[in-house]
Amino acid sequence: MSDQICRQLEARIHREIPVSRFMGVRLVSLEGSSLVLEAALEPNINVHNTAFAGSLYSICALAGWALVTLLAESEQLDAEIVVARGEIKYIRPVTTEPIVARAVLTGTPASVFDSFLDQGKARARVETLVEQEKTPAVIFSGNYALTGKAASRPAADKDSDCPQQTAQSLRTPS
Amino acid sequence: MSDQICRQLEARIHREIPVSRFMGVRLVSLEGSSLVLEAALEPNINVHNTAFAGSLYSICALAGWALVTLLAESEQLDAEIVVARGEIKYIRPVTTEPIVARAVLTGTPASVFDSFLDQGKARARVETLVEQEKTPAVIFSGNYALTGKAASRPAADKDSDCPQQTAQSLRTPS
Repeated sequence: MSDQICRQLEARIHREIPVSRFMGVRLVSLEGSSLVLEAALEPNINVHNTAFAGSLYSICALAGWALVTLLAESEQLDAEIVVARGEIKYIRPVTTEPIVARAVLTGTPASVFDSFLDQGKARARVETLVEQEKTPAVIFSGNYALTGKAASRPAADKDSDCPQQTAQSLRTPS
Repeated sequence: MSDQICRQLEARIHREIPVSRFMGVRLVSLEGSSLVLEAALEPNINVHNTAFAGSLYSICALAGWALVTLLAESEQLDAEIVVARGEIKYIRPVTTEPIVARAVLTGTPASVFDSFLDQGKARARVETLVEQEKTPAVIFSGNYALTGKAASRPAADKDSDCPQQTAQSLRTPS
């Protein structure tokens, strides 16, 4: 299931975001509220022959967007999701092949999506990390805006008072 | 002069940052402490058919890097320049063709480069703006680290106590 929905979203990203194809972006896995996205190093190098800062941002931001998108889809939410703000810190150069970014949702999915269902809009915060030799090399924090139709999730789910259940439903067994 | 040095750096960027070629990046002009960089919209679109957030960041960050690089080169500084931190706010979608980013140095070039000459390192702050229909659409703030050999500028210039003169020397008449 995880692999299948990653492949579907990866195909959409490649089709609708042309630069992602050039960058060699691949959605690797979704587990709970964590998503791994990879990109090839070679098309993303810079003048120092390390990963280009702009590509590193794109990879981190895209990982966060893919994570929020897949979590929303698993809840059958009809939401438009865009990154509203991004902050990134470059700690050391990245030279790994492939570049690997791990995005993690801050807080529970339920806290984000219940707000969306009630108000038709919400904010999701994602932290994305790129490591170099097992130490942090790039730390990204993204603030994603969800807008759309409120209460598009089945009423039975919406009325649930069990955030844990909502979070559980987002875990896609591989 | 401005056009010539922009063409030279643009060629280097295209050669050494492959994704910049795909994005259709062009260095348009350098005037004083302000640089304009453009990119084509089509290779940089996203799933909403507007400019991809990652590309917008890349364009803004690259404009800032190019600005600091050209200002340093005009002072004959042997500095390695990398972006250390970046923050970006997306205010409205960008659909202009081309995407135009204007990067402006915060403070005077002299304040940055005198610090570099004294200590062999410095920080430069750049604000980059992308407009959509003459209103701000994307605001980027980048913190660039300069490292390298101290006092690589001619001694006569280094000993000058006239920041205005230093700033003037960075203005490249078109």
